[in-house]
Amino acid sequence: MEVTKTLAQFVVESRYDAIPDRVRHEARRSVLNWLGCAIGASRHEGIDIALAALGEFSGPAQATVLGRGDRVDIMHAALLNGISSHMFDFDDTHLKTVIHPSGPVASALLALAEYRPMSGADFLHAFILGVEVECRIGNAVYPSHYDVGWHITGTAGVFGAAAAVGRVLKLNAQQMTWALGIAATQSSGLREMFGTMCKPFHPGRAAQNGMTAAFLASKNFTSSERGIEAPRGFANVLATARNYDEITGNLGQTWEVALNTYKPFACGIVIHPIIDGCVQLRNEHKLKAAEIAGIALKVHPLVLELTGKKTPQVGLEGKFSVYHSAAVAIIHGEGGEDVYSDTCVRDPEVITLRDKVSAAVDKSVHEDAAHIEIKLKDGRTLTKHVEHAIGSLARPMSDADLEAKFRKFAKGILASGETDALLKLCWSLDKLKDAGEIARASVPAG
Amino acid sequence: MEVTKTLAQFVVESRYDAIPDRVRHEARRSVLNWLGCAIGASRHEGIDIALAALGEFSGPAQATVLGRGDRVDIMHAALLNGISSHMFDFDDTHLKTVIHPSGPVASALLALAEYRPMSGADFLHAFILGVEVECRIGNAVYPSHYDVGWHITGTAGVFGAAAAVGRVLKLNAQQMTWALGIAATQSSGLREMFGTMCKPFHPGRAAQNGMTAAFLASKNFTSSERGIEAPRGFANVLATARNYDEITGNLGQTWEVALNTYKPFACGIVIHPIIDGCVQLRNEHKLKAAEIAGIALKVHPLVLELTGKKTPQVGLEGKFSVYHSAAVAIIHGEGGEDVYSDTCVRDPEVITLRDKVSAAVDKSVHEDAAHIEIKLKDGRTLTKHVEHAIGSLARPMSDADLEAKFRKFAKGILASGETDALLKLCWSLDKLKDAGEIARASVPAG
Repeated sequence: MEVTKTLAQFVVESRYDAIPDRVRHEARRSVLNWLGCAIGASRHEGIDIALAALGEFSGPAQATVLGRGDRVDIMHAALLNGISSHMFDFDDTHLKTVIHPSGPVASALLALAEYRPMSGADFLHAFILGVEVECRIGNAVYPSHYDVGWHITGTAGVFGAAAAVGRVLKLNAQQMTWALGIAATQSSGLREMFGTMCKPFHPGRAAQNGMTAAFLASKNFTSSERGIEAPRGFANVLATARNYDEITGNLGQTWEVALNTYKPFACGIVIHPIIDGCVQLRNEHKLKAAEIAGIALKVHPLVLELTGKKTPQVGLEGKFSVYHSAAVAIIHGEGGEDVYSDTCVRDPEVITLRDKVSAAVDKSVHEDAAHIEIKLKDGRTLTKHVEHAIGSLARPMSDADLEAKFRKFAKGILASGETDALLKLCWSLDKLKDAGEIARASVPAG
Repeated sequence: MEVTKTLAQFVVESRYDAIPDRVRHEARRSVLNWLGCAIGASRHEGIDIALAALGEFSGPAQATVLGRGDRVDIMHAALLNGISSHMFDFDDTHLKTVIHPSGPVASALLALAEYRPMSGADFLHAFILGVEVECRIGNAVYPSHYDVGWHITGTAGVFGAAAAVGRVLKLNAQQMTWALGIAATQSSGLREMFGTMCKPFHPGRAAQNGMTAAFLASKNFTSSERGIEAPRGFANVLATARNYDEITGNLGQTWEVALNTYKPFACGIVIHPIIDGCVQLRNEHKLKAAEIAGIALKVHPLVLELTGKKTPQVGLEGKFSVYHSAAVAIIHGEGGEDVYSDTCVRDPEVITLRDKVSAAVDKSVHEDAAHIEIKLKDGRTLTKHVEHAIGSLARPMSDADLEAKFRKFAKGILASGETDALLKLCWSLDKLKDAGEIARASVPAG
């Protein structure tokens, strides 16, 4: 079975006019959400550090570090924008695999678009194909790949970036096969890094490595032609089970980007039903932290595996603490980036309430559900069962919700008129003559 | 057990004067052999392709592409020199793990030495520490890690480059721990790529990624502090068994670089006893290919697993064909780079003899041994048992052998006086005020 070649052939031969409108619209929503996340985190110390560490090795000023004035070569732009887009853990999620699809693909593509101008339609087409490739490869190896300990956004993302960039570079099928192989052999990223700067580093490096793979293949740097399916290839080495039909079945008939979702809260997706339910209880009962004796959660098994940090010390760790997230949802009524600051995880009021939160695995609770029981000091018990969290496929964020989230990110970085203009560019992406306009418009005047 | 921190602490606190003379001498031999390999392959099309594909993204002219006039930023220099040093598969081997130790470490260090001048002693000290780190980590996960399908030179090499560069950057123990973590999460390289340009890409990328890790850590980019030993860290995710005592035991008491070996033949180390024995039979009996009816080999199991390609089509594949290697050893009496050219693997005389070679696994044959039986058309049978191949720890290449190998690489690239001068620099490496001198001296005048 020729998995890698079949996938490469599909990417090379795909026609934009064969992609349904609703798929294109979901892709625009994905890009808009990704861009907001990257701009929002553009002043994070992790970006300052990465620029300070690597800036002196940058090539010519080919592309924009989103939301900032810095211009670097496109490989570094892909890396830095990939990091910033995932820094808040607030970007999109392909729920079936917990891949964050846009980071690796859009970060590589938009950097390239500034250096080798391409139309908005070519950009969106390549974006859709990149997401298709990474998510199909993810589908083929999930969950065993993730269970072993791989951060799938990095490991699958590198294929997405290679495919998208390779498409724009007009690789032929042979070169695209090599590009996927060169991507396969750079596939990396450990789940152990969750809660450190290395987590957002993964989509950034995937964007950069995937783009490297495509450029190398464009000049005929060779790799195996069976990088995905060979006995010593990606799917066998990085997973304990695999289903290649997830990669080659129904190509061009179904579209993975149509299954993308966007986070209303700035933390791991598995905590979202808890925050959703806690905010609802808070608002319905005008709850104050001081009234609460204890909070008992029943959750899907992944919640404790991924976000079981009892006593987070820094903001990034807070994103991996279901206890912290429940506490701030009650106290602040939200799950935005502000409640995952270093200050907030060290706030005595938050710590006091956090210590009253307990969580138990309940295998009957599915991934976007949760059950919350709050015991009050006056003896009352409040309960809430969330069947589908806001932001899930069953309760998606609307276009207006996405705009509001974007505006929150841009506030303090762009002037309000600049934000309006950028949103307009995103919604009309595939009508643009020059997709790189979006990157340049992400930088505030002056 | 704190594996990552313990290793980081050791690298940070190591003193050069505590390292025995014979260890330092083996390190000089390693650097000399590595440099020759890199110069020898500097005009290979794989380097031309990589430069053509990536050169336009290079930063300032900070470091030399060895053996060529090109100057690129140090990250690209680490990548390109790492690729060329392994392009011929002719570099050094740490036999216990089949790691090629110098590629990832020396390629990163020498690039850095041109940009941030360091003494030869500092270079050699950091080199020894880098090799120590990558080989100890390799020892801890070998053989299961390799059996799963990882190319250990890439996966372990990234730690070596991070440690060596981190040492020169004077990282503190906390930063060194992060550097090893940032390295861990970039660890990659699939054995499926053997026989393509991606195999030499692995040590190059390991050099570049390890150096990236050290620079990021130097500015306090964070990672897990248990990147090696955590449940979702390197040793658990990339191997099915592990022994941390191989990493933390006897630190500073034993030195892995002392176990390094150098190849007399330009192919995978497991074929070396076959070539050694075939060349001996050829010379002892003045054998001609036309006299031979059949060649039967008894080999260690890894030989067929790694080098079982029956009908190689291009030179790189020939290096992974025990059949081709036996045939050219008889016909040409050697195993140098020339017999692994595209022309040579397609030579009808070679193909005819190659098709008469059979190989069978014999579990009683150890890794640097082989048994050869040649049936002649006149009815005679010749046999040769090689107990330890030339180049093994039991029959090491002498300093003079290494010089001769180096001169063969440099011929046609450097003038003979330039080669003499470069060899002198290598042998006196730790007396140099400026280690970067070696890189500059690798470029022919004019």
